[in-house]
Amino acid sequence: MDLGESDADGARQGERGPLDHPTRVQLLEAADEHFRRYGYAKTTVADLARAIDVSPAYVYRFFESKQAIGEAVCAMTLGRICAALQAVEAEPRSASERLRRCYRTLVDKGFELYFNERKLHETVIAAVEGRWSSIAHYRQNLADLVRRLVVAGREAGEFERKTPIDDLCVAINSTMTPFCHPILLEQTGQADLRANAEQVAGLVLRSLAP
Amino acid sequence: MDLGESDADGARQGERGPLDHPTRVQLLEAADEHFRRYGYAKTTVADLARAIDVSPAYVYRFFESKQAIGEAVCAMTLGRICAALQAVEAEPRSASERLRRCYRTLVDKGFELYFNERKLHETVIAAVEGRWSSIAHYRQNLADLVRRLVVAGREAGEFERKTPIDDLCVAINSTMTPFCHPILLEQTGQADLRANAEQVAGLVLRSLAP
Repeated sequence: MDLGESDADGARQGERGPLDHPTRVQLLEAADEHFRRYGYAKTTVADLARAIDVSPAYVYRFFESKQAIGEAVCAMTLGRICAALQAVEAEPRSASERLRRCYRTLVDKGFELYFNERKLHETVIAAVEGRWSSIAHYRQNLADLVRRLVVAGREAGEFERKTPIDDLCVAINSTMTPFCHPILLEQTGQADLRANAEQVAGLVLRSLAP
Repeated sequence: MDLGESDADGARQGERGPLDHPTRVQLLEAADEHFRRYGYAKTTVADLARAIDVSPAYVYRFFESKQAIGEAVCAMTLGRICAALQAVEAEPRSASERLRRCYRTLVDKGFELYFNERKLHETVIAAVEGRWSSIAHYRQNLADLVRRLVVAGREAGEFERKTPIDDLCVAINSTMTPFCHPILLEQTGQADLRANAEQVAGLVLRSLAP
């Protein structure tokens, strides 16, 4: 399963034309930079068109609205977090250790990607508040990843097999919320969250002991 | 320990005069109703003075600003959640069962008190975003409660005693975040959160097994 690709699929609301068109790629890079520097609310489609030297009409050949651009930027950001988690999943380690590292990766990648000079990436907030499809897609990817790790740990005899797997995965995903919700990241701060993530991972792994 | 009283202490920033003065009590009730009905932002000190038939100057004898009134209303709301948790703590049940009921109480009381006809209590949001002292105080009360239940469970032989208690309490508190943060309550919905809380409580209790 390629998290990156399925993320792109999840973000295609209001999009047109090929995913790998050079103008689309350029536009998303310009949008990411503008949204981080000036904020999502203050950036217009005309600003973005000007930044990459095309007409606004040309931009609309790829995206039907500013929100569609925001969705794609948000999906790109979240796709990077998914890619980092996928790299953790692929490491040649026990399921326990990979699950522990997922908590750490959520905090560290979250801070790296949501913040720019301590200013929260406004696009992600807009996405969370507007319940954009990119967020639902990200949560689903994360839930799938957790499930695969639980299955792997059960098969390897690392985890107990009594608790119904659906219930278990709901619970584990819920314990990850404080480490993947951008508003909570902003309110808590990185050092505290890293320490909390470590302790929560420990608690979850103790609960999984056979 | 009386959670209600200490909550009141925590909210006294910008307050003057006796806590039990009838005008203060009347004013807080009017403020609670106004903030719920019209929103915190749209309510003025003059509106509140008019509602209880006193002059704005008289209001300022109790509170130095609208924010001080907001803090007191927020502390009152959070104090009610603490009181409900305290009632759970006092029940003649095992520590495990009381801890499980705390998760449920957080969700149910949270919805009861933060929402009014599905509109989120704007005062609590203002408090969370402004990092008012009433919020810090509430989180501390919750942390103290969790610790007392863990100690009780350890003493009764219900919980393991190997994990350092500080680490354990940090982790348990973190797992409660999705059920006590008003923004997360609003985004998830009561039915889903009740189910999640039940599963998280189960996971935490399995991790506490001796």
